[in-house]
Amino acid sequence: MSHPHPELGPPPPLPKGALRVVALGGLGEIGRNMTVFEYAGKLLVIDCGVLFPEEEQPGIDLILPDFEYIRDRLDDIEAIVLTHGHEDHIGAVPFLLRERADIPLVGSRLTLAFISAKLGEHRIKPELVQVSEGERHSFGAFDLEFFAVNHSIPDALAVGVRTPAGTLLHTGDFKMDQLPLDGRITDLGGFARFGAEGVDLLLSDSTNAEVPGFVTSERDIANVIDSVFAKADKRIITASFASHIHRVQQVLDAAHTHGRKVAFVGRSMVRNMNIARDLGYLKIPGGLLVDVKELDGLPPEKVVLVCTGSQGEPMAALSRMANRDHQIHIEPGDTVVLASSLIPGNENSVNRVINGLTRWGAKVVHKGNALVHVSGHAPAGELLYVLNMVRPRNFMPVHGEWRHLRAHAQLARLSGIPEDRVAIAEDGVVVDLYKGRARITGVVEAGYVYVDGTSVGGVTEAALKDRRILGEEGFISVIIAVESTTGKIIGEPQIHTRGAGIDAEAYDDVLPRIQDALDRAATEGINDTSQLRQLVRRSIGRWVSDTYRRRPMIVPVVVEI
Amino acid sequence: MSHPHPELGPPPPLPKGALRVVALGGLGEIGRNMTVFEYAGKLLVIDCGVLFPEEEQPGIDLILPDFEYIRDRLDDIEAIVLTHGHEDHIGAVPFLLRERADIPLVGSRLTLAFISAKLGEHRIKPELVQVSEGERHSFGAFDLEFFAVNHSIPDALAVGVRTPAGTLLHTGDFKMDQLPLDGRITDLGGFARFGAEGVDLLLSDSTNAEVPGFVTSERDIANVIDSVFAKADKRIITASFASHIHRVQQVLDAAHTHGRKVAFVGRSMVRNMNIARDLGYLKIPGGLLVDVKELDGLPPEKVVLVCTGSQGEPMAALSRMANRDHQIHIEPGDTVVLASSLIPGNENSVNRVINGLTRWGAKVVHKGNALVHVSGHAPAGELLYVLNMVRPRNFMPVHGEWRHLRAHAQLARLSGIPEDRVAIAEDGVVVDLYKGRARITGVVEAGYVYVDGTSVGGVTEAALKDRRILGEEGFISVIIAVESTTGKIIGEPQIHTRGAGIDAEAYDDVLPRIQDALDRAATEGINDTSQLRQLVRRSIGRWVSDTYRRRPMIVPVVVEI
Repeated sequence: MSHPHPELGPPPPLPKGALRVVALGGLGEIGRNMTVFEYAGKLLVIDCGVLFPEEEQPGIDLILPDFEYIRDRLDDIEAIVLTHGHEDHIGAVPFLLRERADIPLVGSRLTLAFISAKLGEHRIKPELVQVSEGERHSFGAFDLEFFAVNHSIPDALAVGVRTPAGTLLHTGDFKMDQLPLDGRITDLGGFARFGAEGVDLLLSDSTNAEVPGFVTSERDIANVIDSVFAKADKRIITASFASHIHRVQQVLDAAHTHGRKVAFVGRSMVRNMNIARDLGYLKIPGGLLVDVKELDGLPPEKVVLVCTGSQGEPMAALSRMANRDHQIHIEPGDTVVLASSLIPGNENSVNRVINGLTRWGAKVVHKGNALVHVSGHAPAGELLYVLNMVRPRNFMPVHGEWRHLRAHAQLARLSGIPEDRVAIAEDGVVVDLYKGRARITGVVEAGYVYVDGTSVGGVTEAALKDRRILGEEGFISVIIAVESTTGKIIGEPQIHTRGAGIDAEAYDDVLPRIQDALDRAATEGINDTSQLRQLVRRSIGRWVSDTYRRRPMIVPVVVEI
Repeated sequence: MSHPHPELGPPPPLPKGALRVVALGGLGEIGRNMTVFEYAGKLLVIDCGVLFPEEEQPGIDLILPDFEYIRDRLDDIEAIVLTHGHEDHIGAVPFLLRERADIPLVGSRLTLAFISAKLGEHRIKPELVQVSEGERHSFGAFDLEFFAVNHSIPDALAVGVRTPAGTLLHTGDFKMDQLPLDGRITDLGGFARFGAEGVDLLLSDSTNAEVPGFVTSERDIANVIDSVFAKADKRIITASFASHIHRVQQVLDAAHTHGRKVAFVGRSMVRNMNIARDLGYLKIPGGLLVDVKELDGLPPEKVVLVCTGSQGEPMAALSRMANRDHQIHIEPGDTVVLASSLIPGNENSVNRVINGLTRWGAKVVHKGNALVHVSGHAPAGELLYVLNMVRPRNFMPVHGEWRHLRAHAQLARLSGIPEDRVAIAEDGVVVDLYKGRARITGVVEAGYVYVDGTSVGGVTEAALKDRRILGEEGFISVIIAVESTTGKIIGEPQIHTRGAGIDAEAYDDVLPRIQDALDRAATEGINDTSQLRQLVRRSIGRWVSDTYRRRPMIVPVVVEI
């Protein structure tokens, strides 16, 4: 079970009394978390998130799980459980609900508030089932129990699932801060009790499985933020995720202590903090908050801006400030605090933002030079606690790239779970729990579905391949007009290039070659358009390669007149 | 002097008795190091390197300094001093020597061997002046003294420059490993003596100015590599830079100790290690080395492969192994050691390689989980030693992005150099040393010159902008044939798209719109081709934006028949 299975085919029919687990996202990647559980023909979905594109997916807005595996069985879905309100766990819900709007959404109060706001933007009114830690709720044959877990967003839950085929525990995303700001710790005692009942399969968050030790408490950031505030004598600008309510709370508290006013900047920050305040997750001292427009009337040493853009997103306020492309001009002496993680893949963008801000004279405080961030995911030391408390019969590392899944599997083995009881699965790999044993039995389609503009799935891998070539090399287009009745070529070929770095003067060099090729074709009686296109493609391709050592996309077009 | 100077114009004529310093690369970026010194109409160049492109420079092979500033004065260049053999210090030399081949190249034995090999590939036979630490050589009015420095390549030098206008010290890249493998430490004593003579301007490596403390000795890696070798019971594959001779030496030593054979993989690795061995910088025990082809005959536990690709370069052997696209198949139990830095910008590629190798069952050892790399650049603690030993009258941080230059400037101020004696300059900013004071006096052109295939400078910023649009969004091309004499449109417009994710079926939707626009144009008597193109562009642009919320490049082509 410990490495890729090229031999796997479609899974066999699920035996009676078996439970099937298929992750459509989140295994072999960080993001797009979605796991489908099947028992006796009915389905339970845990999480339904998006993945954010990287450079290999140019122009893509979002990546969704492929719903094809469950598309014919949407009516069999008993519920979608959302473990918490992060985009990589809830972001794809609107797209699934477009296909069946009345699937019950199960989650905690804050999670449901976040997903409702999102669905409102998509004009979908969902069916919501609000749950809390300690509660049990049945959805068909799936008997669910919820456990409090601590994460980088409040009100996150782990889910215990009892079925006649066996019991499983899915941790969701979690860590084990023992002194969280809201006092709501991960319910390790509950895990132990559930484990004592007998857990057949544990699915646990692998994101930080490679990181040794234990997380630092979110609370420890307070001192650092306080000392940043104490030293700053101009504006303070903080950036974090718009969902990190506890982090923002710490900034608000520091601002209050140091007599500064706070303005929220950015649509998602304003929206989420309103929700969090309305529900009591964020406490804002009276008179602390001001509107961005009121900032001009305040001296710099009385101002805090709380914004998004901590990942260097080019359109976010922070990037635009770094580029002098925002109404707020960075001045020498301003302090910018990136109170956030650095998500792998964003290093370049964040580095550009730090350099841009530094260039204008700002002092930038970030996780590289101060304790202004702690991770939301349990590192190895904490994962071992969970493994040892739950003592599952079978284990499946989830939420992670291969390096994280393997590292977590290794922890499981060290904790005493036999190697053949550890199922390392990729997206789409089918794990069946049958007679107390989890086994990989097949594989289903679980590819990327791309959202680009308004289209879902319209941009395919082929289009992305074209984009990668166009983006690296540009294109050369050659247009040849032919008489539709005779196939005779009319006039001269015309060349257009973009992004290929080829001057119009060079056309004089290549046009005779194309003409030669066409003349030869005429002599040989070739007038089939696809053969003509092929001829032109070859003759230009050779020229560009010989002359420039480049391979732009070559687009021959035969226009029939 | 401490922040960007939008007000700067061309520099004034250089006063008699003044020394001018202009960096054409390396300030505000890491790479492309090249600094031009001018005294009495004559020029001295220190380093002439390349910058490797990032994602904003798609399809580009290399980025060169812009030689325009010195193009009219190539005959005034007395010498190019190469501080060491890394690409970001020597890589642009062939391109400058194409413009004047007989500029003397001054450097240490290994540096000259590396640049000669490179120039050989370009069929340039250079004029070489080999120098060593402790020596003095004059080139016109520039009286040079060389100092040993320790770096991640052997035989690196710092350069002291005495001119009638003042004395300066350029550290080149350096660190201060006190127990280097070759026993050749940075000559801090020499710096102190030179400083005691009076240094008017210190230019010092800023790459690690943000990193507190001191480097770990290269020697400390030996124990870690040894324990990796002791534990490995299958193949060992190490990856590092092809120029990191000491790192490779440590791998060879460990292989020898553990009774394994070594094969070099990759053209640059083989070439450089041959040079290093021939010159005595690399010691290879007899019988240790085998050819890659002989590996099949050896049991896995007797094999070490030494290859490049530690930065995740997609065409390098290591990436191809990770993708199962190389004759060497990764097997469960193989150990891969990434004995190298992770250059900012390469995080994604390296992560992909680690995940790919892990997926096939390899154990990957890298700087994130073991001490298999130490940096080649002095961190803050060591930079302070240099500042305090040299005690320069003026200071200019070099080799670094803005964050590094600012951090180094701050160290200089802490060491007692007055703020107005610290010149933070970007590429192209002119610093004049006159009457003992360094001042920013102007700015010259120092933009990027792109190498793509065989062309230097042929791919412009405009072409790159096109590539970025094409790469994100693809293109839609519309071809309209018109009768050249009458301007009358012949036949129907034809549409071609690539990378836009638009189905051919959608053409039926947009063609009538284009036809409408053309009909209206005909009614209004518009038959100017540029107006027609404009019309078509607008009508399609609106359609794509309304239908898909996307902005592909729109390429209207009017073919006159």
